[in-house]
Amino acid sequence: MSYILQVDFPFTGPWGEEMTTVMQGLAVSIAQEPGLRWKIWTENQDIQQAGGIYLFDNEANAQAYLIMHQARLEAAGVSGIQAKIFAVNAALSKITKFLN
Amino acid sequence: MSYILQVDFPFTGPWGEEMTTVMQGLAVSIAQEPGLRWKIWTENQDIQQAGGIYLFDNEANAQAYLIMHQARLEAAGVSGIQAKIFAVNAALSKITKFLN
Repeated sequence: MSYILQVDFPFTGPWGEEMTTVMQGLAVSIAQEPGLRWKIWTENQDIQQAGGIYLFDNEANAQAYLIMHQARLEAAGVSGIQAKIFAVNAALSKITKFLN
Repeated sequence: MSYILQVDFPFTGPWGEEMTTVMQGLAVSIAQEPGLRWKIWTENQDIQQAGGIYLFDNEANAQAYLIMHQARLEAAGVSGIQAKIFAVNAALSKITKFLN
């Protein structure tokens, strides 16, 4: 069974292409995390928040990543982190065109 | 540019296969929503919450869906709905293996 980790937090930029430039090295590192199928990087300049939607192979990998990630964000001075882990209902998701 | 809508709310079941049976008709209908690429159905029995991660083609479709969905949930007696819309940073997401 696969698991979603959803994370968001207050963020003041950089946004868009500038964010891509600044975060590129971090993204290369995240791509190597155990059990990660993918991460979608999310950003909303209007509400000054950013985050990620992660798909993991199992719950233990999602939880281990969250502990590490939360510590990394807090070390970077980020507070107000919202994070939740959910099981994916694969049968319903397939009906709604998620085939991963 | 594609957009993520993340929604979660207090939920007391049914879970898993039983949830699939009960929600199948709704899923068939959601699959037809304008601009929806996919929805991932999420559930967490431990924290008694469920929700969805939606990928939309554009922001207007994500917002229109959210207004309709929130009204539908409230009509079903659900309160405490958490919902956020984010732009997808496609370049960073590609590095972290999201190729959709």
